[in-house]
Amino acid sequence: MEKLSAALLGATGMAGQQFIRFLDGHPYFELKVLTASCKNVGKTYREAAKWFVEGEMPAHIAEMTVLETSVDAVRQAAPDVKVVFVALPSGKAKECELECAQAGWHVFSDAGCFRLEPDIPVIIPEVNGDHLQLLHAQRRNRNWTGSIVKNPNCTITGAAMALKPLAPFGLKQVHLASMQAVSGAGYDGVYSMQILDNVIPYIAEEEEKVQQEALKLLGELNEDASAVRWHPMWLSASCHRVPTLYGHLEALFIEFEREVDLDEVKAALKNFRGTPQELKLPTAPYQPLLLTEDPFRPQTRLDRDAGEPDRARGMAAVVGRVRYDEAFREDGRTVLKNRIRLINLSHNTVRGASGNAVLTAELALRQGYVG
Amino acid sequence: MEKLSAALLGATGMAGQQFIRFLDGHPYFELKVLTASCKNVGKTYREAAKWFVEGEMPAHIAEMTVLETSVDAVRQAAPDVKVVFVALPSGKAKECELECAQAGWHVFSDAGCFRLEPDIPVIIPEVNGDHLQLLHAQRRNRNWTGSIVKNPNCTITGAAMALKPLAPFGLKQVHLASMQAVSGAGYDGVYSMQILDNVIPYIAEEEEKVQQEALKLLGELNEDASAVRWHPMWLSASCHRVPTLYGHLEALFIEFEREVDLDEVKAALKNFRGTPQELKLPTAPYQPLLLTEDPFRPQTRLDRDAGEPDRARGMAAVVGRVRYDEAFREDGRTVLKNRIRLINLSHNTVRGASGNAVLTAELALRQGYVG
Amino acid sequence: MEKLSAALLGATGMAGQQFIRFLDGHPYFELKVLTASCKNVGKTYREAAKWFVEGEMPAHIAEMTVLETSVDAVRQAAPDVKVVFVALPSGKAKECELECAQAGWHVFSDAGCFRLEPDIPVIIPEVNGDHLQLLHAQRRNRNWTGSIVKNPNCTITGAAMALKPLAPFGLKQVHLASMQAVSGAGYDGVYSMQILDNVIPYIAEEEEKVQQEALKLLGELNEDASAVRWHPMWLSASCHRVPTLYGHLEALFIEFEREVDLDEVKAALKNFRGTPQELKLPTAPYQPLLLTEDPFRPQTRLDRDAGEPDRARGMAAVVGRVRYDEAFREDGRTVLKNRIRLINLSHNTVRGASGNAVLTAELALRQGYVG
Amino acid sequence: MEKLSAALLGATGMAGQQFIRFLDGHPYFELKVLTASCKNVGKTYREAAKWFVEGEMPAHIAEMTVLETSVDAVRQAAPDVKVVFVALPSGKAKECELECAQAGWHVFSDAGCFRLEPDIPVIIPEVNGDHLQLLHAQRRNRNWTGSIVKNPNCTITGAAMALKPLAPFGLKQVHLASMQAVSGAGYDGVYSMQILDNVIPYIAEEEEKVQQEALKLLGELNEDASAVRWHPMWLSASCHRVPTLYGHLEALFIEFEREVDLDEVKAALKNFRGTPQELKLPTAPYQPLLLTEDPFRPQTRLDRDAGEPDRARGMAAVVGRVRYDEAFREDGRTVLKNRIRLINLSHNTVRGASGNAVLTAELALRQGYVG
Repeated sequence: MEKLSAALLGATGMAGQQFIRFLDGHPYFELKVLTASCKNVGKTYREAAKWFVEGEMPAHIAEMTVLETSVDAVRQAAPDVKVVFVALPSGKAKECELECAQAGWHVFSDAGCFRLEPDIPVIIPEVNGDHLQLLHAQRRNRNWTGSIVKNPNCTITGAAMALKPLAPFGLKQVHLASMQAVSGAGYDGVYSMQILDNVIPYIAEEEEKVQQEALKLLGELNEDASAVRWHPMWLSASCHRVPTLYGHLEALFIEFEREVDLDEVKAALKNFRGTPQELKLPTAPYQPLLLTEDPFRPQTRLDRDAGEPDRARGMAAVVGRVRYDEAFREDGRTVLKNRIRLINLSHNTVRGASGNAVLTAELALRQGYVG
Repeated sequence: MEKLSAALLGATGMAGQQFIRFLDGHPYFELKVLTASCKNVGKTYREAAKWFVEGEMPAHIAEMTVLETSVDAVRQAAPDVKVVFVALPSGKAKECELECAQAGWHVFSDAGCFRLEPDIPVIIPEVNGDHLQLLHAQRRNRNWTGSIVKNPNCTITGAAMALKPLAPFGLKQVHLASMQAVSGAGYDGVYSMQILDNVIPYIAEEEEKVQQEALKLLGELNEDASAVRWHPMWLSASCHRVPTLYGHLEALFIEFEREVDLDEVKAALKNFRGTPQELKLPTAPYQPLLLTEDPFRPQTRLDRDAGEPDRARGMAAVVGRVRYDEAFREDGRTVLKNRIRLINLSHNTVRGASGNAVLTAELALRQGYVG
Repeated sequence: MEKLSAALLGATGMAGQQFIRFLDGHPYFELKVLTASCKNVGKTYREAAKWFVEGEMPAHIAEMTVLETSVDAVRQAAPDVKVVFVALPSGKAKECELECAQAGWHVFSDAGCFRLEPDIPVIIPEVNGDHLQLLHAQRRNRNWTGSIVKNPNCTITGAAMALKPLAPFGLKQVHLASMQAVSGAGYDGVYSMQILDNVIPYIAEEEEKVQQEALKLLGELNEDASAVRWHPMWLSASCHRVPTLYGHLEALFIEFEREVDLDEVKAALKNFRGTPQELKLPTAPYQPLLLTEDPFRPQTRLDRDAGEPDRARGMAAVVGRVRYDEAFREDGRTVLKNRIRLINLSHNTVRGASGNAVLTAELALRQGYVG
Repeated sequence: MEKLSAALLGATGMAGQQFIRFLDGHPYFELKVLTASCKNVGKTYREAAKWFVEGEMPAHIAEMTVLETSVDAVRQAAPDVKVVFVALPSGKAKECELECAQAGWHVFSDAGCFRLEPDIPVIIPEVNGDHLQLLHAQRRNRNWTGSIVKNPNCTITGAAMALKPLAPFGLKQVHLASMQAVSGAGYDGVYSMQILDNVIPYIAEEEEKVQQEALKLLGELNEDASAVRWHPMWLSASCHRVPTLYGHLEALFIEFEREVDLDEVKAALKNFRGTPQELKLPTAPYQPLLLTEDPFRPQTRLDRDAGEPDRARGMAAVVGRVRYDEAFREDGRTVLKNRIRLINLSHNTVRGASGNAVLTAELALRQGYVG
């Protein structure tokens, strides 16, 4: 298969660097263009980017010249670009993505804008890869030859992966408390004075995003695939920042419509697979969810990099402490069989960002939405 | 008022040192005896204890000789002891406290044993100081001249303080997710290899304690004050360890029996006072609960030491982010007026341990239960 | 004594807040004016400053209106201002301090500019309070009615306090390796992504400052008190950032001109006192240096707040592990009696910043340089 | 080549687990026996070891049965064992290693005992691989058919690698200040209460080890290869624990016998290679020392895993900030051309422990000392 030419917008920041980890040597995509903000235009990538991803900066990427973030600059440098990965901040992305889609490019974006637009799919490939069908409506509605596909917020990503296999049991309501890593706010998002020996109990706008995107991700396409019917459950989130580098750990309290069998719940989590696994996509982990029976796991540092093979490191979410809820009285304990508690962990800058966008692009390509 | 002679069992560990902070120079109690484990018997306190509380070890305490932890040793050294503070590990306390109560001493204990015994009060003075009335039944039942009063678990302490003023609104159920400091496990309870850049999603036996003690703390005495009728709500906890030194921060999702008014809820929290404040007890904070409107507060490091005057540093819990719960649909947001979310913080080794035990002893003394 | 009116320039940042801790309720100075950058002008201090110092923001300070940082604004608001404390960043301070001195005000500044100018004293009151005599030359040279006095860099402050009492033994050379807290870079100076689980082995321009200022601090006034003869030793520094909040810990390897007696060295450290102690200045600690024999001390977190009375918390440096250097061969160990190694700790935002500037102002006032 | 049968003594602890990472799938050695302390004997490795190395426990290792740590138990289970890797604590190792050597086994040990015995080589393969020649004298002296080879202390390892290529310039004296990770004390060696937001300025016995072993490592064999003539320089160390997980970072101040050229020094560091690189040993990094010109590097977290290929991750030390020392006077700066300062980083549980022992065993095997 001939590789498709790709551009990466916002290549020098932390999110951009993580994209490079996944795109370097990719079997489907060839990274031809890197863009950044004005002050870095014209420099080599080595000069422009302070590299903080583990491992060395790939040598040939280091020598690429950084371009301006604009449709014209990209087109001029690489007229055959088909796929555009976006690691821009939301404000800048908002201007840029629409233009890219008009230009006929297929945009896979980690930026927060547009996620609630009815004809713009927000995709976790294993959870709702079928929502890519929205792209037909999107192109029709907007008269685009290209398209826009979004990543969800990094905090809901892991939770949605754990909730998807539980949906057949009848999700009614979910309480979610997150313990989020500092990298979720970007390289310069949390000062050390703010977080050493501390917990910050608020992340601006995060809870709204989590609560809304969860329902869209778990929702179903309507008859003509023009929009998603949101899942009818409700989810309530309390989001907190803790002193960890990578990995969002979340406690979920789940109420079902009816009693559930704990073993069946565990089996559903363990056996969860999606189209990426069937198609053996390059960035797909063998198992998107790993279930642990060790009550002390998942732990942020020990489990955030879960996911095999090597290419999919950090792409698996890890679920543990799956247990019934319970109520106490003076005279004893009642097991609440319609309620389950569990812990969920996923890597916020991998499955919650670049890795998920690349996996989505792989799925879109294989299903004929790109090119 | 003449001071009552007091002993501190388990004086050299972290919990014991915190007791010394509160008992040194206390207007009601005079610390006459310090005990520790065998290897430290006969040493001065300075030799026996590796001091890690802020500030210097009090000079006269430093020169006291450490005794064996036994009724005989205490009695021999200070025949007039009336009050015994217990900072022993649970196993050792279990043997020792019964003997002390038989010996006619009034035990105020931070150890975990006996909390669920019907005639043993578990007290947060502002929350359920009236449960001290159980002591009549306790002495009757057990034929003791002394008594035993317990501290609750350090994780439920702050939550119970926040829930008490909300009880009149009709508590139905509570989901609680904790982010607990390493000191909660004792000085040697969490290795640095376990917690740096990490969250541990499980604390052995903690959730059961939290779930049960909450109901006893918020319960009511029965007619003859022989036992507590547990509160009929239920509480579900998920307990987690994070890399902070002191201060347990908790996210609470509260469902009420009926709709509540947010302003009234806030007023109830803000105006909460108890008998310790009326009696102006030495270790009582002016306000047991502080309410903040800054969405970024309470924060563990910045707010754990809340409480005025100086003697009550760390004795106030701080509540913030008091907000309705909400549900989303494609077409908008519904406010759920029978549900409130909030964040609560309290100092686990002060209000959750020594400080609370000392305040309880002050209340018991002033109400005639001691002496 | 009537209090002198004082202004604080740059009142809302971390350094400014620390100044307020020391100036609030000060017996010599009355804080009449607070200034900040444009965006905060006209707000109350409560609105303008995100308070992160421990304890509450003083109530009457909270209600003060924040002014523009300019000589005119200050003069108009408080024509009787005599003393100006500066907590501005170096660039802004550079413009502003000269004007203030011309205006007849006595400037005590924590900003880095001007420290190497021959007629500008850099003062640690116990170390080189006599260098205030430079102010006569300064006023003469510059035709000022006011004056400028500087704080040294926060990294050399503690080391200079430890080296001063050792000077009589004949200092020849010093190697210094620092382990500096993140607060040294200001509230937003170090991102959490940069320092969690990390050491950064470089702090821009820090080593030059440390190496130069040490020699000026330990130097002697020339005959006509017009300049300082730098100390003839040399000092070599390697400066590193570690994940601590407050407190710069430093390892010193000291070579003397001749052999020294270890007990005499320790006695010199322990007995070190200066004019602030003689005059019992309000912010002076009883002992500027505390010597510990516990090999595991000083520790950053446990000892950074050393200093009594309460008003002087954090004003004492702590020295420990004072030991000879040694050389090994196959056949044994030689003690090098002309070399001493030790560990030194001081609080970088207290003794290394606001606290030291306030103590210097107290000394200057009492010695007649101000007013 | 047929693989040699190997045993790992002390397989379940942190050091043992790190050995498994390097020995699993090793081309020269086949791990046939795992031993541990009594309480784990008879369990599978999966049951006995709480795995905290990144990645999964190798499946076939997980199923191995753990044996008692004794010569008899090993011999019985695997009569053909030739090579023994030791990850035991020093006390236990002291008893065990002598017996192993008598039994004819070739011991490669990370335990601290015996390092100063004249006929026991302490090896960093690139630094002093030729010291393996001591094994002839060792066997002669002790009448062993087996042998003992030791790893050096993990703190001197990186420094010795940086100093070795500088030896030709004439090393005179070195001051070394370390910032060591908590893992250096073992899994349970540092409590979180001790190190969060803290620096501990002392590590028991560490400085003596560093100061002595450095001279033996850099020394030369005498004529008949019966002992090492220690290097005649001297080294003075100050050792400190900081809140990092892995990686010992060190500041070195080096004085040479004469002036050196900075570019030649850098070239020597950069071009440093040893026999492991010539022989392309399986665990040898392409370059044992990496030199960086970025003043902000090496950083503990970003650089501790340096070393290519993948099998040698963490086996390269990283050196940076190589610069002349300098002296200041009022009138300017003098460059001290006989003194160099630099920063050095190496991975304490890889190059400073298991990885180095495995590389040493590879070298010994290839040079005919084993088998």
